[in-house]
Amino acid sequence: MEFKTSKRMANIKASEIRELLKLTEMPEIISFAGGLPAPELFPIDEIIEVNRIVLETDGEKALQYTTTEGFPPLREWIAKRMNDQMKTNFDADNILITHGSQQALDLSGKVFLDEGDVVLCESPTYLAAISALRAYGCEFVEIPTDDDGMNMKALEEQLKTLDNVKIIYVIPEFQNPTGRTWSPERRKKLAELSAEYGVVVFEDNPYGELRFEGKSELAVKSYDKTGNVLCAGTFSKIFCPGFRIGWIAGDKELIRKFVLVKQGTDIQCNTMAQMVIAKYVELYDIDAHIETIRKVYKHRRDLAIQTMEATFPKEVVFTRPQGGLFAWAELPEHLDTRVLLEKALEQKVAIVPGDAFFPNACKKNMFRINFSNMTEERIVEGITRLGNVLHTFLA
Amino acid sequence: MEFKTSKRMANIKASEIRELLKLTEMPEIISFAGGLPAPELFPIDEIIEVNRIVLETDGEKALQYTTTEGFPPLREWIAKRMNDQMKTNFDADNILITHGSQQALDLSGKVFLDEGDVVLCESPTYLAAISALRAYGCEFVEIPTDDDGMNMKALEEQLKTLDNVKIIYVIPEFQNPTGRTWSPERRKKLAELSAEYGVVVFEDNPYGELRFEGKSELAVKSYDKTGNVLCAGTFSKIFCPGFRIGWIAGDKELIRKFVLVKQGTDIQCNTMAQMVIAKYVELYDIDAHIETIRKVYKHRRDLAIQTMEATFPKEVVFTRPQGGLFAWAELPEHLDTRVLLEKALEQKVAIVPGDAFFPNACKKNMFRINFSNMTEERIVEGITRLGNVLHTFLA
Repeated sequence: MEFKTSKRMANIKASEIRELLKLTEMPEIISFAGGLPAPELFPIDEIIEVNRIVLETDGEKALQYTTTEGFPPLREWIAKRMNDQMKTNFDADNILITHGSQQALDLSGKVFLDEGDVVLCESPTYLAAISALRAYGCEFVEIPTDDDGMNMKALEEQLKTLDNVKIIYVIPEFQNPTGRTWSPERRKKLAELSAEYGVVVFEDNPYGELRFEGKSELAVKSYDKTGNVLCAGTFSKIFCPGFRIGWIAGDKELIRKFVLVKQGTDIQCNTMAQMVIAKYVELYDIDAHIETIRKVYKHRRDLAIQTMEATFPKEVVFTRPQGGLFAWAELPEHLDTRVLLEKALEQKVAIVPGDAFFPNACKKNMFRINFSNMTEERIVEGITRLGNVLHTFLA
Repeated sequence: MEFKTSKRMANIKASEIRELLKLTEMPEIISFAGGLPAPELFPIDEIIEVNRIVLETDGEKALQYTTTEGFPPLREWIAKRMNDQMKTNFDADNILITHGSQQALDLSGKVFLDEGDVVLCESPTYLAAISALRAYGCEFVEIPTDDDGMNMKALEEQLKTLDNVKIIYVIPEFQNPTGRTWSPERRKKLAELSAEYGVVVFEDNPYGELRFEGKSELAVKSYDKTGNVLCAGTFSKIFCPGFRIGWIAGDKELIRKFVLVKQGTDIQCNTMAQMVIAKYVELYDIDAHIETIRKVYKHRRDLAIQTMEATFPKEVVFTRPQGGLFAWAELPEHLDTRVLLEKALEQKVAIVPGDAFFPNACKKNMFRINFSNMTEERIVEGITRLGNVLHTFLA
């Protein structure tokens, strides 16, 4: 049967990479390909307790429809936390609860993008941001990056040249896929360019709370004087991803537009999940919980990086992230990490080939490693295997 | 600050009706304006128990990411139930879990609609279907309806004339807003026309389980031989709306397209909510629970209709729904139910003016009454007040 679908469906294809990654899910494979948080750290006992309290004291409300904007106490808590961390001046009306930060991306597409509009992004950038925004028919222009973040000269060049840029999409903290963190100077400059050229910045910050060392920098949003910068956040990495609770924060007038769009999209997020998180942060110390996650991930990162240093051929260059979930490795330019993945799978170890993180450029000689979702023993064993594969592959 | 948004934002405005309805939420007002299920019927104790069981036995899984398609046991249960009720031949791969049936509508827009495409719908139709699909730039062509459903001659006329019809959107069971149910002949004819003209039918069925009397008819889907008919369902009216769990069911090839689109949109639905519903239907008798809802709503419908018959002026014509949540009333043509609402609010009673349910026609002389979300005493008191308002209004 041939169905008459929309033109955009030509750009929405089964991700080759996802198909490839299905292979990596076999239990005998040590996989650094995923991006999942460590489930053994989920606060299960506390959630059981909070579920009971919410349903016993306020069950009819928790199971009923609520407003599109989201559960007010949770929005207030998020606003306050962002004010503490980013020196913003938010209240609940600056916050819309979304189905993870992924939905914040989708709604941004709906709010801002017409067919042919341009999104400027880091090169490389988050795989699923590409698919979320591409559904609205945009083009991506990749801006080169280095260890301090996006190249601001190259960004300004594009802003000067192109007249249909609608969104600048960035992940300044422990970027996915590279694990890199932007310098304060670049953040400030981005806010200035956004104001000068009147272009919205989507500052995606799923990993910012997971800093292992060094001091936190202000967000791009902290330097924003125009309301042009939107920030997305999520409970997926600091609480649990299964609840699908994230948010988009920004100028109230813009957030109103997001609320209108979300109303028609799916009405609202799970009332109960929002109330459970709000009660959890009231009754328990989420900072202590985040500190536990940080310690575990830091140890895993340390082991991963140490083992990479000990076992990878010296031609392989890699990042040493100060937080987050990912590191990024680069091979000599003529090599293809899809082929590397095939060789790695033969040795029961997996990585993600990096080409999928480039919307256009498709550089083939890079790969991403996740270190959050595996025991320490398997990290050492897996990276050691990968080192062996790399030695053969480069030889 | 002026933000450069997409063209579609011109069509996505704060719904006047929603603003109006905020007035109806004051506690002293007896409001028939909403569409909420009765919260006193939510199975709160059972959900507390099931939450505990799911988290104690499978907590790491319940709080982690799952597949975009949804939790397999829940998809299997839905497939089996649809097979029993609709004589379909579904398995889990025919089902995608969505954030309520509202998201099924949004995803349909993404899968099928380009700017300028046409959606054929009942006149009047579900308010939020209009906003979901309009976000994709479609035009609506309203097809006249009567007590047996959509007028099939008028539908065929449009299918013959228009070459860019992408979706026929219908609610054959206890329609929102009219409460009407389609005859079997019309359902069969719709499936035939859909096959003949190669146009997808979106059969929205949020209320089908809530039949108070008479026998259930087969769905439009039951007559579908081509795979052109998609069915949306939801747990909002038979379990609770706060979980935001619904589904879209249909041809596997089409459902694969929906899965791809949902992946970029919000990755997946709440894992825990899906596992809790799957465990609830395993441990408890959802049919007994639905029977309880039916009995309560039937009694409320009886009281509402009896009081309307006793107190409404005879010029007011209204539907007598055999199920669902809504009845629909029609005044003489020169009257405007927005004005009626103003008069009603003075007497502390509220209805929804009907114009918002017409994407183009904007007939002003109708209104919708909800009877699911109110105590019996308030139904009688409220409808009696409304009768008085109508007598004055028509005089």
